[in-house]
Amino acid sequence: MPRYRLVVAYDGTDFCGWQRQELPDGESLRSVQRAVEEAVRGVVREPITVKGASRTDSGVHAVAQCAAFTCEREDLALEKIFRATNARLPEDAQVLDVAEAARDFNPIRDAVSKGYAYRLAVPGPRGAMRPLFDRRTTAWTPYRLDPDRMNAAAARLVGEHDFASFTRLHHGRESTVRPVHGCRVLVESADRLRFETWGGGFLHNMVRIIVGTLIEVGRGRIEPEAIDAILAARDRTAAGPTAPAQGLCLEWIAYPHEVLGVRWEE
Amino acid sequence: MPRYRLVVAYDGTDFCGWQRQELPDGESLRSVQRAVEEAVRGVVREPITVKGASRTDSGVHAVAQCAAFTCEREDLALEKIFRATNARLPEDAQVLDVAEAARDFNPIRDAVSKGYAYRLAVPGPRGAMRPLFDRRTTAWTPYRLDPDRMNAAAARLVGEHDFASFTRLHHGRESTVRPVHGCRVLVESADRLRFETWGGGFLHNMVRIIVGTLIEVGRGRIEPEAIDAILAARDRTAAGPTAPAQGLCLEWIAYPHEVLGVRWEE
Repeated sequence: MPRYRLVVAYDGTDFCGWQRQELPDGESLRSVQRAVEEAVRGVVREPITVKGASRTDSGVHAVAQCAAFTCEREDLALEKIFRATNARLPEDAQVLDVAEAARDFNPIRDAVSKGYAYRLAVPGPRGAMRPLFDRRTTAWTPYRLDPDRMNAAAARLVGEHDFASFTRLHHGRESTVRPVHGCRVLVESADRLRFETWGGGFLHNMVRIIVGTLIEVGRGRIEPEAIDAILAARDRTAAGPTAPAQGLCLEWIAYPHEVLGVRWEE
Repeated sequence: MPRYRLVVAYDGTDFCGWQRQELPDGESLRSVQRAVEEAVRGVVREPITVKGASRTDSGVHAVAQCAAFTCEREDLALEKIFRATNARLPEDAQVLDVAEAARDFNPIRDAVSKGYAYRLAVPGPRGAMRPLFDRRTTAWTPYRLDPDRMNAAAARLVGEHDFASFTRLHHGRESTVRPVHGCRVLVESADRLRFETWGGGFLHNMVRIIVGTLIEVGRGRIEPEAIDAILAARDRTAAGPTAPAQGLCLEWIAYPHEVLGVRWEE
Protein backbone atom coordinates (compact mmCIF):
# COMPACT_ATOMS: atom_id res chain seq x y z
CA MET A 1 0.00 0.00 0.00
CA PRO A 2 1.66 3.24 -1.17
CA ARG A 3 1.92 6.23 1.14
CA TYR A 4 1.99 9.80 -0.16
CA ARG A 5 2.89 13.13 1.27
CA LEU A 6 1.22 16.28 0.06
CA VAL A 7 2.32 19.88 0.44
CA VAL A 8 -0.88 21.83 1.09
CA ALA A 9 -1.40 25.60 1.07
CA TYR A 10 -4.56 27.26 2.37
CA ASP A 11 -6.13 30.55 3.28
CA GLY A 12 -7.34 29.66 6.78
CA THR A 13 -9.89 32.49 7.03
CA ASP A 14 -12.96 30.41 6.29
CA PHE A 15 -11.80 27.12 7.83
CA CYS A 16 -12.29 26.01 11.44
CA GLY A 17 -8.60 25.07 11.38
CA TRP A 18 -6.67 22.13 10.04
CA GLN A 19 -8.21 19.43 12.16
CA ARG A 20 -11.49 17.69 11.44
CA GLN A 21 -14.11 18.68 14.01
CA GLU A 22 -17.13 16.45 14.25
CA LEU A 23 -20.38 17.84 15.58
CA PRO A 24 -22.75 15.80 17.79
CA ASP A 25 -25.25 15.52 14.92
CA GLY A 26 -22.73 13.67 12.76
CA GLU A 27 -21.91 16.70 10.64
CA SER A 28 -18.46 18.23 10.76
CA LEU A 29 -17.16 21.79 10.55
CA ARG A 30 -15.36 23.10 7.48
CA SER A 31 -11.79 22.02 8.28
CA VAL A 32 -8.85 21.86 5.89
CA GLN A 33 -8.34 18.20 6.82
CA ARG A 34 -11.91 17.40 5.78
CA ALA A 35 -11.53 19.34 2.52
CA VAL A 36 -8.29 17.51 1.66
CA GLU A 37 -9.70 14.12 2.67
CA GLU A 38 -12.82 14.64 0.55
CA ALA A 39 -10.75 15.72 -2.44
CA VAL A 40 -8.29 12.81 -2.17
CA ARG A 41 -11.11 10.28 -1.59
CA GLY A 42 -12.73 11.50 -4.79
CA VAL A 43 -9.51 10.73 -6.62
CA VAL A 44 -8.42 7.42 -5.09
CA ARG A 45 -12.00 6.23 -4.47
CA GLU A 46 -11.07 4.81 -1.07
CA PRO A 47 -11.99 6.00 2.44
CA ILE A 48 -8.47 7.30 3.21
CA THR A 49 -7.63 9.56 6.13
CA VAL A 50 -5.11 12.35 5.97
CA LYS A 51 -2.68 13.24 8.74
CA GLY A 52 -1.26 16.76 8.95
CA ALA A 53 2.03 17.94 10.45
CA SER A 54 0.62 20.99 12.22
CA ARG A 55 -2.84 21.47 13.70
CA THR A 56 -3.25 25.09 12.67
CA ASP A 57 -6.10 26.95 14.39
CA SER A 58 -9.09 28.58 12.76
CA GLY A 59 -7.98 31.57 10.69
CA VAL A 60 -4.33 30.47 10.55
CA HIS A 61 -2.84 30.01 7.08
CA ALA A 62 -0.28 27.64 5.59
CA VAL A 63 1.91 27.93 2.54
CA ALA A 64 3.48 24.52 3.20
CA GLN A 65 1.47 22.23 5.45
CA CYS A 66 2.46 18.57 5.13
CA ALA A 67 -0.29 15.96 4.89
CA ALA A 68 0.13 12.21 4.40
CA PHE A 69 -2.19 9.37 3.44
CA THR A 70 -1.99 5.70 2.58
CA CYS A 71 -4.21 4.03 0.01
CA GLU A 72 -4.61 0.58 -1.48
CA ARG A 73 -4.49 1.67 -5.10
CA GLU A 74 -1.05 1.51 -6.62
CA ASP A 75 -1.86 2.59 -10.18
CA LEU A 76 -2.15 6.34 -9.70
CA ALA A 77 0.60 8.56 -11.10
CA LEU A 78 1.75 11.39 -8.83
CA GLU A 79 0.79 13.96 -11.48
CA LYS A 80 -2.69 12.47 -11.66
CA ILE A 81 -3.14 12.73 -7.88
CA PHE A 82 -1.83 16.29 -8.00
CA ARG A 83 -4.12 17.47 -10.81
CA ALA A 84 -7.25 15.60 -9.78
CA THR A 85 -6.99 16.55 -6.10
CA ASN A 86 -6.57 20.22 -6.98
CA ALA A 87 -9.54 20.06 -9.30
CA ARG A 88 -11.66 18.88 -6.34
CA LEU A 89 -10.37 21.29 -3.69
CA PRO A 90 -12.23 24.52 -2.88
CA GLU A 91 -10.70 27.83 -3.98
CA ASP A 92 -9.09 28.49 -0.58
CA ALA A 93 -6.98 25.31 -0.45
CA GLN A 94 -4.43 23.93 -2.86
CA VAL A 95 -2.01 21.03 -3.21
CA LEU A 96 1.42 22.35 -4.21
CA ASP A 97 3.21 19.03 -4.48
CA VAL A 98 2.72 15.27 -4.20
CA ALA A 99 5.46 12.72 -3.57
CA GLU A 100 5.77 9.12 -2.45
CA ALA A 101 6.64 8.68 1.21
CA ALA A 102 8.04 5.87 3.33
CA ARG A 103 5.41 3.45 4.61
CA ASP A 104 5.98 4.59 8.18
CA PHE A 105 6.21 8.30 7.38
CA ASN A 106 4.57 10.32 10.16
CA PRO A 107 4.30 14.02 9.29
CA ILE A 108 4.16 15.11 12.95
CA ARG A 109 6.78 12.86 14.54
CA ASP A 110 9.24 13.00 11.64
CA ALA A 111 9.28 16.81 11.38
CA VAL A 112 12.65 18.17 12.45
CA SER A 113 11.64 21.81 12.62
CA LYS A 114 8.94 24.21 11.49
CA GLY A 115 8.84 27.90 10.63
CA TYR A 116 5.95 30.27 11.29
CA ALA A 117 5.56 33.87 10.12
CA TYR A 118 3.24 36.50 11.54
CA ARG A 119 2.30 39.61 9.54
CA LEU A 120 1.32 42.74 11.40
CA ALA A 121 0.13 46.14 10.10
CA VAL A 122 1.51 48.97 12.21
CA PRO A 123 0.89 52.73 12.01
CA GLY A 124 2.61 54.22 8.96
CA PRO A 125 3.03 57.76 7.65
CA ARG A 126 -0.76 58.23 7.59
CA GLY A 127 -1.24 56.86 11.13
CA ALA A 128 -2.93 53.59 12.05
CA MET A 129 -4.72 52.00 9.08
CA ARG A 130 -6.46 48.67 8.94
CA PRO A 131 -5.00 46.37 6.27
CA LEU A 132 -7.20 46.32 3.17
CA PHE A 133 -6.17 43.94 0.39
CA ASP A 134 -4.10 41.78 2.76
CA ARG A 135 -6.55 41.94 5.66
CA ARG A 136 -7.13 38.18 5.63
CA THR A 137 -3.46 37.43 6.24
CA THR A 138 -2.38 40.43 8.32
CA ALA A 139 -3.31 41.43 11.86
CA TRP A 140 -3.03 45.08 12.88
CA THR A 141 -2.31 47.24 15.86
CA PRO A 142 -3.04 50.94 16.40
CA TYR A 143 0.15 51.28 18.50
CA ARG A 144 3.55 52.38 17.27
CA LEU A 145 6.00 49.56 17.98
CA ASP A 146 9.75 49.70 18.46
CA PRO A 147 11.23 46.78 16.47
CA ASP A 148 14.56 47.00 18.31
CA ARG A 149 12.88 46.43 21.65
CA MET A 150 10.89 43.58 20.13
CA ASN A 151 14.05 41.96 18.76
CA ALA A 152 15.79 42.29 22.11
CA ALA A 153 12.88 40.42 23.67
CA ALA A 154 12.68 37.88 20.83
CA ALA A 155 16.35 36.97 21.28
CA ARG A 156 15.63 35.95 24.88
CA LEU A 157 13.09 33.38 23.67
CA VAL A 158 15.63 31.53 21.53
CA GLY A 159 16.87 28.31 23.09
CA GLU A 160 15.34 25.34 24.86
CA HIS A 161 12.96 26.83 27.39
CA ASP A 162 9.89 25.84 29.32
CA PHE A 163 7.19 27.73 27.43
CA ALA A 164 4.37 27.06 29.93
CA SER A 165 3.72 30.82 30.10
CA PHE A 166 3.25 30.83 26.32
CA THR A 167 0.53 28.24 25.88
CA ARG A 168 -3.08 28.11 26.80
CA LEU A 169 -4.17 26.60 30.06
CA HIS A 170 -5.28 22.98 29.97
CA HIS A 171 -3.00 22.33 27.03
CA GLY A 172 -2.86 18.65 27.93
CA ARG A 173 0.83 18.21 27.16
CA GLU A 174 3.13 16.60 29.68
CA SER A 175 6.16 18.68 28.88
CA THR A 176 6.06 22.34 27.94
CA VAL A 177 9.78 22.49 27.13
CA ARG A 178 10.40 23.34 23.47
CA PRO A 179 13.51 24.24 21.46
CA VAL A 180 13.15 27.58 19.65
CA HIS A 181 15.88 28.00 17.05
CA GLY A 182 15.09 31.51 15.93
CA CYS A 183 12.77 34.38 16.76
CA ARG A 184 12.95 37.83 15.13
CA VAL A 185 11.04 40.84 13.90
CA LEU A 186 11.68 42.25 10.42
CA VAL A 187 10.53 45.64 9.17
CA GLU A 188 8.92 44.82 5.83
CA SER A 189 7.78 48.31 4.90
CA ALA A 190 6.73 51.61 6.49
CA ASP A 191 3.56 49.99 7.87
CA ARG A 192 4.19 46.24 7.96
CA LEU A 193 6.18 44.14 10.42
CA ARG A 194 6.93 40.50 9.84
CA PHE A 195 7.68 38.20 12.76
CA GLU A 196 9.45 34.88 12.14
CA THR A 197 10.05 32.02 14.50
CA TRP A 198 11.32 28.53 13.88
CA GLY A 199 12.15 25.57 16.05
CA GLY A 200 11.71 21.93 16.92
CA GLY A 201 8.14 22.21 18.16
CA PHE A 202 5.52 24.66 19.30
CA LEU A 203 2.81 24.42 21.94
CA HIS A 204 -0.78 25.32 21.22
CA ASN A 205 -1.11 29.12 20.70
CA MET A 206 2.60 29.52 21.47
CA VAL A 207 3.47 31.62 18.42
CA ARG A 208 0.43 33.86 18.85
CA ILE A 209 1.19 34.44 22.56
CA ILE A 210 4.83 35.21 21.72
CA VAL A 211 3.64 37.77 19.15
CA GLY A 212 1.12 39.24 21.60
CA THR A 213 3.87 39.56 24.19
CA LEU A 214 6.31 41.14 21.71
CA ILE A 215 3.65 43.71 20.80
CA GLU A 216 3.46 44.65 24.50
CA VAL A 217 7.24 44.97 24.49
CA GLY A 218 7.19 47.02 21.28
CA ARG A 219 4.75 49.56 22.68
CA GLY A 220 6.67 49.85 25.93
CA ARG A 221 4.42 48.02 28.36
CA ILE A 222 6.84 45.14 28.97
CA GLU A 223 10.63 45.50 29.11
CA PRO A 224 12.66 43.15 26.87
CA GLU A 225 14.54 41.88 29.94
CA ALA A 226 11.22 40.85 31.54
CA ILE A 227 11.02 37.92 29.10
CA ASP A 228 13.28 35.88 31.40
CA ALA A 229 10.91 36.32 34.35
CA ILE A 230 7.86 35.58 32.13
CA LEU A 231 9.48 32.30 31.05
CA ALA A 232 10.43 31.47 34.66
CA ALA A 233 6.90 32.12 35.91
CA ARG A 234 5.50 29.16 33.97
CA ASP A 235 2.16 30.97 34.17
CA ARG A 236 0.01 32.00 31.18
CA THR A 237 -1.03 35.22 32.90
CA ALA A 238 2.59 36.40 33.03
CA ALA A 239 2.77 36.72 29.21
CA GLY A 240 0.91 39.11 26.91
CA PRO A 241 -2.38 38.49 25.09
CA THR A 242 -2.83 35.97 22.28
CA ALA A 243 -2.40 37.79 18.95
CA PRO A 244 -5.22 37.26 16.42
CA ALA A 245 -5.10 34.16 14.22
CA GLN A 246 -5.21 35.87 10.83
CA GLY A 247 -1.62 37.13 10.94
CA LEU A 248 -0.14 33.65 11.41
CA CYS A 249 1.12 31.39 8.63
CA LEU A 250 2.92 28.05 8.68
CA GLU A 251 5.70 28.69 6.17
CA TRP A 252 7.94 25.64 6.09
CA ILE A 253 8.55 22.23 7.63
CA ALA A 254 11.94 20.53 7.60
CA TYR A 255 12.14 16.73 7.40
CA PRO A 256 15.35 14.70 7.49
CA HIS A 257 15.54 14.48 3.69
CA GLU A 258 13.67 17.54 2.47
CA VAL A 259 12.32 20.93 3.36
CA LEU A 260 8.72 21.71 2.41
CA GLY A 261 8.21 25.39 1.66
CA VAL A 262 11.00 27.92 1.67
CA ARG A 263 13.21 27.90 4.75
CA TRP A 264 14.51 31.31 5.79
CA GLU A 265 18.14 32.22 6.01
CA GLU A 266 19.24 32.17 9.61
CA MET B 1 -20.13 75.28 1.36
CA PRO B 2 -16.81 73.41 1.38
CA ARG B 3 -16.10 70.68 -1.15
CA TYR B 4 -13.81 67.76 -0.39
CA ARG B 5 -12.08 65.13 -2.44
CA LEU B 6 -11.37 61.70 -0.99
CA VAL B 7 -8.93 59.08 -2.18
CA VAL B 8 -10.74 55.78 -1.70
CA ALA B 9 -9.33 52.25 -1.91
CA TYR B 10 -11.49 49.15 -1.99
CA ASP B 11 -11.50 45.43 -2.54
CA GLY B 12 -14.29 45.25 -5.12
CA THR B 13 -15.00 41.53 -4.63
CA ASP B 14 -18.09 41.94 -2.49
CA PHE B 15 -19.40 45.18 -4.00
CA CYS B 16 -21.79 45.52 -6.96
CA GLY B 17 -19.33 48.11 -8.28
CA TRP B 18 -18.71 51.76 -7.53
CA GLN B 19 -22.08 53.12 -8.51
CA ARG B 20 -25.17 53.12 -6.35
CA GLN B 21 -27.78 50.72 -7.74
CA GLU B 22 -31.29 51.16 -6.47
CA LEU B 23 -33.68 48.24 -6.54
CA PRO B 24 -37.38 48.61 -7.38
CA ASP B 25 -38.31 47.98 -3.73
CA GLY B 26 -36.36 51.02 -2.57
CA GLU B 27 -33.41 49.02 -1.30
CA SER B 28 -30.04 49.35 -2.97
CA LEU B 29 -27.23 46.93 -3.72
CA ARG B 30 -23.96 47.01 -1.79
CA SER B 31 -22.03 49.56 -3.85
CA VAL B 32 -18.87 51.40 -2.85
CA GLN B 33 -20.62 54.71 -3.49
CA ARG B 34 -23.35 53.80 -1.01
CA ALA B 35 -20.79 52.65 1.58
CA VAL B 36 -18.82 55.89 1.25
CA GLU B 37 -21.95 58.05 1.29
CA GLU B 38 -23.27 56.31 4.40
CA ALA B 39 -19.93 56.70 6.18
CA VAL B 40 -19.54 60.38 5.26
CA ARG B 41 -23.17 61.14 6.14
CA GLY B 42 -22.55 59.66 9.56
CA VAL B 43 -19.67 62.08 10.00
CA VAL B 44 -21.04 65.31 8.55
CA ARG B 45 -24.65 64.55 9.56
CA GLU B 46 -25.99 65.86 6.28
CA PRO B 47 -27.54 63.99 3.32
CA ILE B 48 -24.52 64.50 1.07
CA THR B 49 -23.95 62.62 -2.19
CA VAL B 50 -20.56 61.43 -3.36
CA LYS B 51 -19.37 61.52 -6.97
CA GLY B 52 -16.67 59.12 -8.11
CA ALA B 53 -14.14 59.53 -10.92
CA SER B 54 -14.48 56.03 -12.32
CA ARG B 55 -17.53 53.78 -12.31
CA THR B 56 -15.70 50.55 -11.62
CA ASP B 57 -17.69 47.37 -12.23
CA SER B 58 -18.59 44.70 -9.73
CA GLY B 59 -15.45 42.86 -8.61
CA VAL B 60 -13.08 45.58 -9.84
CA HIS B 61 -10.74 47.09 -7.25
CA ALA B 62 -9.29 50.55 -6.68
CA VAL B 63 -6.22 51.68 -4.83
CA ALA B 64 -6.91 55.32 -5.69
CA GLN B 65 -10.48 56.09 -6.67
CA CYS B 66 -11.34 59.77 -6.36
CA ALA B 67 -14.64 60.74 -4.75
CA ALA B 68 -15.92 64.25 -4.04
CA PHE B 69 -18.72 65.71 -1.93
CA THR B 70 -19.98 69.11 -0.81
CA CYS B 71 -21.47 69.76 2.60
CA GLU B 72 -22.87 72.70 4.51
CA ARG B 73 -20.76 72.24 7.62
CA GLU B 74 -17.55 74.17 7.64
CA ASP B 75 -16.22 73.22 11.08
CA LEU B 76 -14.83 69.78 10.33
CA ALA B 77 -11.07 69.33 10.24
CA LEU B 78 -9.71 67.18 7.40
CA GLU B 79 -8.14 64.79 9.90
CA LYS B 80 -11.50 64.39 11.65
CA ILE B 81 -13.26 63.57 8.36
CA PHE B 82 -10.46 61.12 7.54
CA ARG B 83 -10.53 59.27 10.88
CA ALA B 84 -14.29 59.29 11.42
CA THR B 85 -15.13 58.19 7.86
CA ASN B 86 -12.67 55.31 8.08
CA ALA B 87 -14.13 54.25 11.42
CA ARG B 88 -17.54 53.92 9.71
CA LEU B 89 -16.44 52.18 6.52
CA PRO B 90 -16.65 48.39 6.18
CA GLU B 91 -13.43 46.39 6.21
CA ASP B 92 -13.22 46.23 2.40
CA ALA B 93 -13.18 49.99 1.78
CA GLN B 94 -10.88 52.67 3.07
CA VAL B 95 -10.26 56.39 2.73
CA LEU B 96 -6.55 57.01 2.10
CA ASP B 97 -6.65 60.79 2.02
CA VAL B 98 -8.96 63.78 2.38
CA ALA B 99 -8.31 67.27 0.99
CA GLU B 100 -10.27 70.41 0.25
CA ALA B 101 -11.27 70.82 -3.39
CA ALA B 102 -12.40 73.69 -5.55
CA ARG B 103 -16.14 74.37 -5.39
CA ASP B 104 -16.59 73.28 -9.01
CA PHE B 105 -14.29 70.25 -8.77
CA ASN B 106 -15.73 67.41 -10.85
CA PRO B 107 -13.80 64.17 -10.38
CA ILE B 108 -14.87 62.77 -13.77
CA ARG B 109 -14.57 65.81 -16.00
CA ASP B 110 -11.41 67.19 -14.37
CA ALA B 111 -9.43 63.95 -14.59
CA VAL B 112 -6.58 64.27 -17.07
CA SER B 113 -5.69 60.60 -17.21
CA LYS B 114 -6.16 57.32 -15.35
CA GLY B 115 -4.13 54.17 -14.94
CA TYR B 116 -5.49 50.64 -14.64
CA ALA B 117 -3.59 47.46 -13.84
CA TYR B 118 -4.69 43.88 -14.48
CA ARG B 119 -3.10 40.97 -12.63
CA LEU B 120 -3.12 37.56 -14.26
CA ALA B 121 -1.89 34.20 -12.98
CA VAL B 122 -0.29 32.16 -15.77
CA PRO B 123 1.10 28.62 -15.75
CA GLY B 124 4.38 28.46 -13.82
CA PRO B 125 6.96 25.74 -13.22
CA ARG B 126 4.26 23.51 -11.67
CA GLY B 127 1.79 24.06 -14.54
CA ALA B 128 -1.46 26.00 -14.33
CA MET B 129 -2.41 26.83 -10.73
CA ARG B 130 -5.32 28.92 -9.53
CA PRO B 131 -4.20 31.90 -7.45
CA LEU B 132 -4.67 31.21 -3.74
CA PHE B 133 -3.89 34.10 -1.38
CA ASP B 134 -4.29 36.70 -4.12
CA ARG B 135 -7.29 35.06 -5.76
CA ARG B 136 -9.54 38.07 -5.10
CA THR B 137 -7.30 40.42 -7.05
CA THR B 138 -5.86 38.12 -9.71
CA ALA B 139 -7.53 36.42 -12.66
CA TRP B 140 -5.98 33.27 -14.11
CA THR B 141 -5.57 31.42 -17.33
CA PRO B 142 -4.57 27.80 -17.95
CA TYR B 143 -2.78 28.83 -21.17
CA ARG B 144 0.88 29.64 -21.58
CA LEU B 145 1.12 33.19 -22.90
CA ASP B 146 3.91 34.84 -24.88
CA PRO B 147 4.46 38.30 -23.35
CA ASP B 148 6.40 39.51 -26.38
CA ARG B 149 3.47 38.83 -28.67
CA MET B 150 1.16 40.51 -26.16
CA ASN B 151 3.39 43.59 -26.02
CA ALA B 152 3.54 43.78 -29.80
CA ALA B 153 -0.24 43.85 -29.84
CA ALA B 154 -0.47 46.27 -26.89
CA ALA B 155 1.75 48.78 -28.68
CA ARG B 156 -0.75 48.91 -31.53
CA LEU B 157 -3.48 50.07 -29.15
CA VAL B 158 -1.53 53.13 -28.03
CA GLY B 159 -2.76 56.37 -29.57
CA GLU B 160 -6.10 58.01 -30.22
CA HIS B 161 -8.26 55.30 -31.72
CA ASP B 162 -11.90 54.48 -32.09
CA PHE B 163 -12.31 51.71 -29.50
CA ALA B 164 -15.85 50.70 -30.55
CA SER B 165 -14.61 47.08 -30.88
CA PHE B 166 -13.43 47.23 -27.25
CA THR B 167 -16.60 48.23 -25.45
CA ARG B 168 -19.85 46.50 -24.82
CA LEU B 169 -22.75 46.93 -27.16
CA HIS B 170 -25.31 49.53 -26.19
CA HIS B 171 -22.65 51.53 -24.40
CA GLY B 172 -24.70 54.69 -24.86
CA ARG B 173 -21.72 56.94 -25.60
CA GLU B 174 -21.74 59.18 -28.65
CA SER B 175 -18.04 58.94 -29.37
CA THR B 176 -15.99 55.81 -28.89
CA VAL B 177 -12.69 57.55 -29.68
CA ARG B 178 -10.33 57.52 -26.71
CA PRO B 179 -6.65 58.45 -26.26
CA VAL B 180 -4.59 55.56 -24.85
CA HIS B 181 -1.20 56.79 -23.65
CA GLY B 182 0.31 53.47 -22.69
CA CYS B 183 -0.43 49.79 -22.83
CA ARG B 184 2.02 47.05 -21.83
CA VAL B 185 2.50 43.63 -20.26
CA LEU B 186 5.08 43.10 -17.51
CA VAL B 187 6.33 39.72 -16.29
CA GLU B 188 6.05 40.03 -12.51
CA SER B 189 7.21 36.52 -11.59
CA ALA B 190 7.33 33.00 -12.99
CA ASP B 191 3.54 32.73 -12.77
CA ARG B 192 2.19 36.28 -12.69
CA LEU B 193 1.72 38.80 -15.50
CA ARG B 194 0.77 42.39 -14.88
CA PHE B 195 -0.93 44.43 -17.56
CA GLU B 196 -0.90 48.23 -17.35
CA THR B 197 -2.78 50.76 -19.42
CA TRP B 198 -3.22 54.48 -18.97
CA GLY B 199 -4.88 57.21 -20.93
CA GLY B 200 -7.32 60.07 -21.14
CA GLY B 201 -10.45 57.98 -20.86
CA PHE B 202 -11.77 54.45 -21.12
CA LEU B 203 -15.07 53.08 -22.39
CA HIS B 204 -17.12 50.64 -20.37
CA ASN B 205 -15.35 47.24 -20.20
CA MET B 206 -12.59 48.59 -22.45
CA VAL B 207 -9.66 47.51 -20.26
CA ARG B 208 -11.12 44.04 -19.68
CA ILE B 209 -11.76 43.52 -23.41
CA ILE B 210 -8.23 44.71 -24.21
CA VAL B 211 -6.87 42.17 -21.68
CA GLY B 212 -9.12 39.42 -23.04
CA THR B 213 -7.87 40.19 -26.55
CA LEU B 214 -4.20 40.27 -25.47
CA ILE B 215 -4.66 36.85 -23.84
CA GLU B 216 -5.85 35.54 -27.22
CA VAL B 217 -2.76 37.09 -28.80
CA GLY B 218 -0.52 35.62 -26.07
CA ARG B 219 -1.77 32.09 -26.66
CA GLY B 220 -1.44 32.41 -30.42
CA ARG B 221 -5.05 32.65 -31.51
CA ILE B 222 -4.82 36.25 -32.72
CA GLU B 223 -1.77 37.76 -34.43
CA PRO B 224 -0.41 41.02 -32.96
CA GLU B 225 -0.81 42.67 -36.35
CA ALA B 226 -4.52 41.82 -36.35
CA ILE B 227 -5.11 44.53 -33.73
CA ASP B 228 -5.28 47.14 -36.49
CA ALA B 229 -8.09 45.31 -38.25
CA ILE B 230 -9.90 44.73 -34.93
CA LEU B 231 -9.82 48.47 -34.25
CA ALA B 232 -10.92 49.27 -37.79
CA ALA B 233 -13.86 46.86 -37.57
CA ARG B 234 -15.60 48.97 -34.91
CA ASP B 235 -17.39 45.76 -33.96
CA ARG B 236 -17.35 44.16 -30.49
CA THR B 237 -17.31 40.66 -31.97
CA ALA B 238 -13.97 41.36 -33.69
CA ALA B 239 -12.13 41.60 -30.35
CA GLY B 240 -11.47 38.86 -27.76
CA PRO B 241 -13.61 38.00 -24.73
CA THR B 242 -14.03 40.27 -21.71
CA ALA B 243 -11.46 39.26 -19.06
CA PRO B 244 -12.88 38.62 -15.55
CA ALA B 245 -13.38 41.62 -13.28
CA GLN B 246 -11.28 40.44 -10.33
CA GLY B 247 -7.92 41.07 -12.02
CA LEU B 248 -8.64 44.75 -12.67
CA CYS B 249 -7.62 47.62 -10.41
CA LEU B 250 -7.87 51.40 -10.82
CA GLU B 251 -4.38 52.45 -9.73
CA TRP B 252 -4.08 56.22 -10.23
CA ILE B 253 -5.88 59.28 -11.48
CA ALA B 254 -4.04 62.40 -12.64
CA TYR B 255 -5.64 65.82 -12.12
CA PRO B 256 -4.15 69.13 -13.29
CA HIS B 257 -2.59 69.83 -9.89
CA GLU B 258 -2.06 66.40 -8.35
CA VAL B 259 -1.84 62.69 -9.00
CA LEU B 260 -3.88 60.38 -6.77
CA GLY B 261 -2.19 57.02 -6.29
CA VAL B 262 1.20 56.15 -7.70
CA ARG B 263 1.66 56.92 -11.38
CA TRP B 264 3.89 54.47 -13.24
CA GLU B 265 7.06 55.38 -15.01
CA GLU B 266 6.45 55.61 -18.71
